[in-house]
Amino acid sequence: MIQGIDHVGIAVRSIEAQLEFYRQTLGLQQVQIELVNEQRVRVAIIQIGDSRIELLEPTADDSPIARFLERHGEGMHHLALATEDIDGAISTLVDRGVRMIDTTPRCGAGGTQIAFIHPKSAGGVLTELCQHGSQTRLEVQTSED
Amino acid sequence: MIQGIDHVGIAVRSIEAQLEFYRQTLGLQQVQIELVNEQRVRVAIIQIGDSRIELLEPTADDSPIARFLERHGEGMHHLALATEDIDGAISTLVDRGVRMIDTTPRCGAGGTQIAFIHPKSAGGVLTELCQHGSQTRLEVQTSED
Repeated sequence: MIQGIDHVGIAVRSIEAQLEFYRQTLGLQQVQIELVNEQRVRVAIIQIGDSRIELLEPTADDSPIARFLERHGEGMHHLALATEDIDGAISTLVDRGVRMIDTTPRCGAGGTQIAFIHPKSAGGVLTELCQHGSQTRLEVQTSED
Repeated sequence: MIQGIDHVGIAVRSIEAQLEFYRQTLGLQQVQIELVNEQRVRVAIIQIGDSRIELLEPTADDSPIARFLERHGEGMHHLALATEDIDGAISTLVDRGVRMIDTTPRCGAGGTQIAFIHPKSAGGVLTELCQHGSQTRLEVQTSED
């Protein structure tokens, strides 16, 4: 059901302020930035080996990430697990008594389909299931700006 | 300098209580449990693809994980990045002005050498550098008990 850690989502006030650490200091140069309007966030997808770090910056005061930043400050927001069959995974988890935030997949960053497991079913960790389309892993661009 | 996400460390009150979710519900069967006395924690290392999830349970009230649980409750504690040359990575990061908690590596779970970057230098995320010995990736046992 689960193939690996797809990404770790990190809530930040400013992508530009934090990106220097990942790009210049750690040398992770493969970065793609996009808007996810539905969630009212800008996302910087930083490729790191076969996984990614996603920096999540709110674009509105009522964004879920804005509320997270108010309560907790900057830091890790969610853990995303890679699956090749998100519909099957959701169905299996519901059968096993897991409380899902999303019982049908929705669109995530980078052309993914995602569904969140409620932290109460996952030891306090907001856990995401994440399925890539057939091409999304190839679409990450090297950005030097 | 960085090869990927080595693991995500999750603070838990009881490994046994949380392990069911990872093992039975998510089907992640490769689990190894060990004591890290220096940090006063028990660690369940759960293999997930090429990465790991580490469940961290305090073994004493003055354990760093006990203090984290008091302040934040159960949840993600640190993000560990894989490096093949931890001494070189520390040296490079210090040169680049990063505030290190550990300027020399110490022993982590699973025979690793680890060094923490201060969250103030990493956008609020307690970030670990983690180098495996030549054999530790092969030592993970399947445990069914």
